[in-house]
Amino acid sequence: MIEIGLDDLDDIALGATFLGTGGGGDPYIASLMTRRAIAEHGPVTMLSLEEIDDNALVFACGNMGAPTVAIEKIMAADQPPAAVLALESHLGRKADLLMAFEAGGSNSMMPIYNAAMLGKPMVDADGMGRAFPEMQMVTFSVYGALGSPFALASEHGDTTILDIEDDKRAEYIGRGIVIRMGARSAKASFPMDGRTAKRVAIPGTTSLCQAIGVNLRRSRAANRDPFSALIEMLSGTHYGHAKVLFRGKVTDLIRETRDGWAIGKVVIEEQGEGTLEIEFQNEFLVARQEGTLRAIVPDLICILDTEMAQPITTERLRYGQRVTVMAVSAPPIMRTEAALAVFGPVGFGLEDRFVPVEELP
Amino acid sequence: MIEIGLDDLDDIALGATFLGTGGGGDPYIASLMTRRAIAEHGPVTMLSLEEIDDNALVFACGNMGAPTVAIEKIMAADQPPAAVLALESHLGRKADLLMAFEAGGSNSMMPIYNAAMLGKPMVDADGMGRAFPEMQMVTFSVYGALGSPFALASEHGDTTILDIEDDKRAEYIGRGIVIRMGARSAKASFPMDGRTAKRVAIPGTTSLCQAIGVNLRRSRAANRDPFSALIEMLSGTHYGHAKVLFRGKVTDLIRETRDGWAIGKVVIEEQGEGTLEIEFQNEFLVARQEGTLRAIVPDLICILDTEMAQPITTERLRYGQRVTVMAVSAPPIMRTEAALAVFGPVGFGLEDRFVPVEELP
Repeated sequence: MIEIGLDDLDDIALGATFLGTGGGGDPYIASLMTRRAIAEHGPVTMLSLEEIDDNALVFACGNMGAPTVAIEKIMAADQPPAAVLALESHLGRKADLLMAFEAGGSNSMMPIYNAAMLGKPMVDADGMGRAFPEMQMVTFSVYGALGSPFALASEHGDTTILDIEDDKRAEYIGRGIVIRMGARSAKASFPMDGRTAKRVAIPGTTSLCQAIGVNLRRSRAANRDPFSALIEMLSGTHYGHAKVLFRGKVTDLIRETRDGWAIGKVVIEEQGEGTLEIEFQNEFLVARQEGTLRAIVPDLICILDTEMAQPITTERLRYGQRVTVMAVSAPPIMRTEAALAVFGPVGFGLEDRFVPVEELP
Repeated sequence: MIEIGLDDLDDIALGATFLGTGGGGDPYIASLMTRRAIAEHGPVTMLSLEEIDDNALVFACGNMGAPTVAIEKIMAADQPPAAVLALESHLGRKADLLMAFEAGGSNSMMPIYNAAMLGKPMVDADGMGRAFPEMQMVTFSVYGALGSPFALASEHGDTTILDIEDDKRAEYIGRGIVIRMGARSAKASFPMDGRTAKRVAIPGTTSLCQAIGVNLRRSRAANRDPFSALIEMLSGTHYGHAKVLFRGKVTDLIRETRDGWAIGKVVIEEQGEGTLEIEFQNEFLVARQEGTLRAIVPDLICILDTEMAQPITTERLRYGQRVTVMAVSAPPIMRTEAALAVFGPVGFGLEDRFVPVEELP
């Protein structure tokens, strides 16, 4: 059991941007909201999966919408709790614990925010272990927990409860609501008991965000190489294998907004080393160097600026940036056959087979 | 208290097509479903508003979607009851009575269908007194009942509960769900007590459908003028004033599908009489003869084929049809200032002021 206080938020946000692998939205605004909630209501208690009761009721919460809209249309303060309260009222039972469904990007903040606002503890775990664009792309769903019933809340206080037997269809119908709620809804989903959470959630991902953030911050302060320090730190976690894939300059960028996603390709070039091409759909999906596969989803591909090791989100990529590309192995629970069928290459329409980053050149 | 049995369905469907004023969808398929439900579960008990208990819980039910889709994509048998059951489960209370929200068109059948399937009685009343394209266009909403919470169910058994404080926004968000449910959702909405129903509902509209249907059928059988017989019958109801506006041939038709609606204009011509132009948005909204206003929404404009007095829906209008256009005064509860603000000319973006059909040439 640990406490999350004001001093922890910047580190968690920094680590969550790294885990966001280009997507998930910048956690900056969500971290400001969370700062205010903690300042007002006090620090948040976070339990590990092992510490929670088997019969506790856990909700996975976060936002559903377009990251590009999130920057311009800020959530109402009572919007995220409204989703939790609506689901509680529908179930006729209070949630004992809140959890992230997406530890990467801005959704890293939402369980902390909701926990502070509602005076509940949270669980140190999530369903994506990074960021993914769709609701069914969670280990919860892969291992048999159901997203429904789930609640969506708008900034007007409007709420909807969805009860849909298939999480991919839930994503489709839910997205229809989100669009009409102005591409920004708060969500409370995957109501499950503690026993189930222990089986289907990825452990320790909120504290991992914090550890990554602390690591990067300390490297910067000590003027140490942040990349090797981060690689060393990650080697001691269930994310295990991390490496620098490439270092160079952004020389080409194709990015379009299609079906609500930022879809495109970034090319990074270095004299003597050739080019690294990274395809993205909100998140970075696959990296190829001169046609050779270097890393592929669900393994993490992260682009950081070379100087400060600041993770760069897809929408902030610019021509001329000097960047370092890292790859990190996803934890084992995300690499099973069942998991790869949902958020491996095939989940994104890629033709490549998944190969673990540690087996790639 | 009366009973609706198999022999009543064709008459109700015929009258509902008349009250649909061109919209609301052809009740044919819904009447086949209802025929089967009654054959299996027995006749349905229908109470008048005066007969229901003040504390009874009433749901307004029907379908939400595109009438054009309804013809091709038939509802699953358990889809309409699924919406009622979802709303009951959300409220933690069973509905005592079902009611139509739209007596015109195919939605006339849905409370009968649901009542038969679920073994409940229904109320002889509705919220539109005709057909209208949007959820907030009901006297329920005009006089302070709220559409929410309401349930939408898909043919997959998926259900959603919406809790939205404003019925126009509920229409907008609900429509987003309906689109992703394949433009065909079953709905249970406007949960209200009997006391409220007595205040906000339009009385007697299901039995009015039946009376219209019986009247047309008997005129046909007796080779009597069906139009004058219908006008005489309606003069004894709260729809009061009915008349033949025009008789002629369809000589022009512009119809396009825009935002899910059938929008357009039909021109009817008669030598020596000039032309009558009728604008429609699913329903017939306004009729003008050589520029002179003859009838306008919410008063009813109905186009019937001249020979058989069969009401013609917007999507079945064809060049060359010989038609008789009737106008009928809407009941007083639909003509108040508050009602006109929602489903009078301004509700459809028309610039004309409402003038009662009995005051028009």
